[in-house]
Amino acid sequence: MSHDLDQLVRTAHALADVAGAVIRPFFRSRLAPSDKSDESPVTIADRMAERVMRAQLAELHPDHAILGEEFGLHESTSGYQWTLDPIDGTRAFITGRPTFGTLISLSFEGKPIIGIIDQPVTGERWIGVEGRPTLFRSGFGEPSGFAPITTRPCASLAEADLSCTSPEMLEDAPRPVWNTLKAAAKRVSWGGDCYAYGLLAGGHIDVIAECDMKPWDWSALVPIVEGAGGIMTDWNGQTLRHDGDRTVLATGNRALHEAAVACLRS
Amino acid sequence: MSHDLDQLVRTAHALADVAGAVIRPFFRSRLAPSDKSDESPVTIADRMAERVMRAQLAELHPDHAILGEEFGLHESTSGYQWTLDPIDGTRAFITGRPTFGTLISLSFEGKPIIGIIDQPVTGERWIGVEGRPTLFRSGFGEPSGFAPITTRPCASLAEADLSCTSPEMLEDAPRPVWNTLKAAAKRVSWGGDCYAYGLLAGGHIDVIAECDMKPWDWSALVPIVEGAGGIMTDWNGQTLRHDGDRTVLATGNRALHEAAVACLRS
Repeated sequence: MSHDLDQLVRTAHALADVAGAVIRPFFRSRLAPSDKSDESPVTIADRMAERVMRAQLAELHPDHAILGEEFGLHESTSGYQWTLDPIDGTRAFITGRPTFGTLISLSFEGKPIIGIIDQPVTGERWIGVEGRPTLFRSGFGEPSGFAPITTRPCASLAEADLSCTSPEMLEDAPRPVWNTLKAAAKRVSWGGDCYAYGLLAGGHIDVIAECDMKPWDWSALVPIVEGAGGIMTDWNGQTLRHDGDRTVLATGNRALHEAAVACLRS
Repeated sequence: MSHDLDQLVRTAHALADVAGAVIRPFFRSRLAPSDKSDESPVTIADRMAERVMRAQLAELHPDHAILGEEFGLHESTSGYQWTLDPIDGTRAFITGRPTFGTLISLSFEGKPIIGIIDQPVTGERWIGVEGRPTLFRSGFGEPSGFAPITTRPCASLAEADLSCTSPEMLEDAPRPVWNTLKAAAKRVSWGGDCYAYGLLAGGHIDVIAECDMKPWDWSALVPIVEGAGGIMTDWNGQTLRHDGDRTVLATGNRALHEAAVACLRS
């Protein structure tokens, strides 16, 4: 099937624009966050941003399915599904760090074909589209707009910058396995959420290994990482699927990917 | 002694301006970082920024002492000492996160009286001056310039957002003691360096507990945190001193400080 990719890309940008307009006024405001049962903080901005994105899709693509972190699954038989996470990195958002992101993904028959990471405070935006180079805008004031980015060369894990959102994320994972990867890497940095995947696509980080990832956490990231020359799978090197929680491994190139899978399998 | 604080504040801003001008072009460039013996990454920008700040001070205040992370101590008998860390948060810098900062502090007879945290990419800048409210500029494009900020009310550790730069920082510390604090807090977020102290001063984080902190890591933070209504000491509640490595505890108010010290002492 051939998609009207340009039209779908315009929709993806429009969703990011409207979500950002909703989210920005809440950043560093003194709202008390509410807690969900899983302890992850959720703000009013999160719900409002998903609502406006769903409202836009109801107008633009009423036949498409929608899966959102806040309001669940709206089904359809079109084959297209938008996967939305209005604020990925709620801890970053709540503590005033401009390193959270709005994640917008379009999948066709389960395969992500468009992904956006939008940072609505700085104006940074990454967009990946199947078969096209990943593009990055470094801020609202960037006169040249979007430009292609690529992962950086990195020959071995011993030279690699490793990143992970938090040690708490790893508490339910096979932690000794992750520590094998950490021991093999040059350096580890913490904090990041989706933002770190954008940095990997831009050649500033080499490896990210995380777990307990829902489809709305990783779906938008796949076209961005892969369109920049990177690879994204689960910790066993298998294609990511929209069923249940997943481990996620992103690397800047294939050699790093093989080396990282060897650590994480062991 | 009465200081010419306005003149000294102008100098501090001038140092931040010149350091930022040096550092900005290196952000997200693909320079290979060099490693120091202690494994902390240091970039050319780090050294260049300290050099230009020292050059300015040689002109403006040739009688003042200077302690910098990169080039050590330049002594004097004036009682004044500038303490400089051109890039605090080198991991953040190297991985492309705009959450590192330039730290500039002026102490008189060992007591910090002026402190700046400057984020040269976003244009965020915090300035604390003894006896004055802490001021914050949220970015280069902020038309209203600097405005006062304060820590937020937070009645107990159970309601508190705790922050720390990295679990690796705690590896040489009395880790079980830190875990007591973590267990008492509402939530922990990782990554931050100096930027987290600015966020605490602005009421987005409640408690920060870190260790292995050199004078150039914490000296600028004291006037910023205290001028916003917070408290900064070591883990035992003692005044921070310019001799050797220190544990550092910052809280938004006195009640939290007492509760945190009780955890960290136990």
